[in-house]
Amino acid sequence: MNTQDETTALKAARELFVRMVVSNWELQNQRLNGWLAKLPEERLAEPVAEGKNRAVYLLGHLIAVNDGMISLLGLGERLYPELDHLFVKDPDRTFEEIPSVADLKAQWANLNAVLTRYFTELDAEEWFTKHNAISDEDFAREPHRNKLNILINRTNHEAYHLGQLIFLKA
Amino acid sequence: MNTQDETTALKAARELFVRMVVSNWELQNQRLNGWLAKLPEERLAEPVAEGKNRAVYLLGHLIAVNDGMISLLGLGERLYPELDHLFVKDPDRTFEEIPSVADLKAQWANLNAVLTRYFTELDAEEWFTKHNAISDEDFAREPHRNKLNILINRTNHEAYHLGQLIFLKA
Repeated sequence: MNTQDETTALKAARELFVRMVVSNWELQNQRLNGWLAKLPEERLAEPVAEGKNRAVYLLGHLIAVNDGMISLLGLGERLYPELDHLFVKDPDRTFEEIPSVADLKAQWANLNAVLTRYFTELDAEEWFTKHNAISDEDFAREPHRNKLNILINRTNHEAYHLGQLIFLKA
Repeated sequence: MNTQDETTALKAARELFVRMVVSNWELQNQRLNGWLAKLPEERLAEPVAEGKNRAVYLLGHLIAVNDGMISLLGLGERLYPELDHLFVKDPDRTFEEIPSVADLKAQWANLNAVLTRYFTELDAEEWFTKHNAISDEDFAREPHRNKLNILINRTNHEAYHLGQLIFLKA
């Protein structure tokens, strides 16, 4: 191969890898959305199992954590930073007020549309650069801790909680 | 860059992708092993939540599904194909006999050691070739459905069930 072909091959390899990771994230979203579409809204007030988090709390938690990717990946301003306090710092049932299920469902849909746009626009090469929670020194030693790795990690996080949410059946 | 450097860059990029995916799989294993080490063995006979699968069933299910990667990725002979019937085809509690927790724990540990060795030995380029459950035609159209994509998918699957197992606390 000549140099031009090799550069093209490297770019194609990176684009393929990004597509693999993004499509697996989309798959988890599709599954969560399928579950969400079927379950009557009022049932999200129920805990997913006796003594465990309420479904509405887990939904808020997933919005807050996935929204955090916007700043972590340097994509722009977070949409819902105010959710961190309720859904990341505080455990469920330690607060009086919780956003309505309708509001959270709208935020979840909007966040996924915004993230999808950001992910589509991000250059494949850019995905392999460092995210905003790792130092230059650490990244030099551990280059696998890049932006795309964050999305792999957050997809596993979403799958983890989806396994819990699914216990509430329509 | 000259051609030699470019070839090296492509190889390095592929090795980095593989490391990212394998390290995220290892992370889920570590979490599951941490949970398994703390929970008294007899408690795996409990369902993870009322009316849901028993923990021992989910452990057997994860062994069977992850063991399936050995044939799917063309790595060799499966270790425990006999578990498919009990833990993939049949739902929990539809059979009388179930392997002992001690046996399943030993199989889980052995499987992870064997998979780790296979994954280390597999050439980075090989990870981006087709797995054994996709046709040549489909793979030509959808090259992201490669061996590494199977591991991303199975890691999400493990995270999903880990989110359920974790409901049983030591």
